[in-house]
Amino acid sequence: MLSKNAIKRISSLRIRKYREESGVFVAEGCRLVDEILTSELEVKELYHTSEWKNSGLTRNTYIEMVSVDEMKKISGQSSPTPVLAIVSTPKYSILNINFATELVLALDTVQDPGNLGTIIRLADWFGINSVICSNGTADAFSPKVVQSSMGAITRVKVIYCDLPSELAKHTGTIPVYGAFMEGNNIYTANLSQTGIVVMGNEGNGISPAVAQLVTQKIHIPTYANNRTSVESLNVAMATAIICSEFRRR
Amino acid sequence: MLSKNAIKRISSLRIRKYREESGVFVAEGCRLVDEILTSELEVKELYHTSEWKNSGLTRNTYIEMVSVDEMKKISGQSSPTPVLAIVSTPKYSILNINFATELVLALDTVQDPGNLGTIIRLADWFGINSVICSNGTADAFSPKVVQSSMGAITRVKVIYCDLPSELAKHTGTIPVYGAFMEGNNIYTANLSQTGIVVMGNEGNGISPAVAQLVTQKIHIPTYANNRTSVESLNVAMATAIICSEFRRR
Repeated sequence: MLSKNAIKRISSLRIRKYREESGVFVAEGCRLVDEILTSELEVKELYHTSEWKNSGLTRNTYIEMVSVDEMKKISGQSSPTPVLAIVSTPKYSILNINFATELVLALDTVQDPGNLGTIIRLADWFGINSVICSNGTADAFSPKVVQSSMGAITRVKVIYCDLPSELAKHTGTIPVYGAFMEGNNIYTANLSQTGIVVMGNEGNGISPAVAQLVTQKIHIPTYANNRTSVESLNVAMATAIICSEFRRR
Repeated sequence: MLSKNAIKRISSLRIRKYREESGVFVAEGCRLVDEILTSELEVKELYHTSEWKNSGLTRNTYIEMVSVDEMKKISGQSSPTPVLAIVSTPKYSILNINFATELVLALDTVQDPGNLGTIIRLADWFGINSVICSNGTADAFSPKVVQSSMGAITRVKVIYCDLPSELAKHTGTIPVYGAFMEGNNIYTANLSQTGIVVMGNEGNGISPAVAQLVTQKIHIPTYANNRTSVESLNVAMATAIICSEFRRR
């Protein structure tokens, strides 16, 4: 039986501060937990109801069976799933990224967790191994991002950093792309197979400190009939289109 | 002052059944309401707090000033905006679509309102005037879709129909595209500037009845290193990539 303290501790992991203090995050659902168990991530604790089928992937993991009522108390989902895992938050080093040979996504204060989850999923799809994020970007290990990334969080390395100083190390040696109204049409621009592609904040786009480090300005043209009234593309949509253009070449 | 009945009537419009019975939908927010007021849509009633600035676009509209407390009662948003409009649901005829000269999106039971809103926004961006939807597709005039479409709902014509019988009228005369695992690589396939592009349900893809009417099977290739474990793309992401490919040619 789960103690009140255990329930309180697990529930507290919905809050970024407590995740960061304890160095763990929560993942729920049979499929996602199985993906994590087969990945290099370390599952520290696993709570399940009688409904869960252990696929035999658990290693040195603390496992506890709980009642459906207990699961409801620790689950952050609207309909609690049969299994909840507490996973060590991976700490990847930015020094392990080979910027000279990889295509890397950089997120400049992307704030919506749904957008971040979608972008991590797109990175996975397009074979982008690393996503570097400004410290103001949403937490990739929040429940909403973890669940919406559909397992991509087990494969894509998400690393937080001071984005302007990180980019400053690379400008001049590799191309740094960013979307701007006055940029070159992405469909006809020269795009390299390596470099950094910066995506900006939902409301404000790329910040001035980052913008001055962008060496290749690109632009997704609209085909709308009434150009003046059309909103900009959502950042996740723009990421889909830009990654697709980089990879198809 | 708003009567209890008025509050009840306006709040009931969050439910599809009541929207359909009364032939109206709700839009909130200064920018969206202004976009609607400048569009061809008919605003029937407009409720606003003292914060709202009338931009002089209202025509024969019933306008009532309400208190912030009253706005909270009728608003479906977590933080109520200064203005709420009740708008006649547009009824477009599928007969007015010129399938021979247009690129048309067809949605086969896309069920998530967020995905539908994003797809309508993409259609707007890529100059696709009409989106035809199976009757099982989410309601384009639900609050979540209206708000997430960011005004695109005022420009893109969304029409519900019996999708298989509608497609059956066109197969043989125009290309009907659909995404399938065994389809041709979209980056190298021949794509026409006109025709119908079918997008399928989030979980089940394109239904068998619609699949047999698809004449051009296409496929978005993944660039993931570990292909077996990668999820399929979300339907909104796939729509972004497919529309981008059609339009850039």
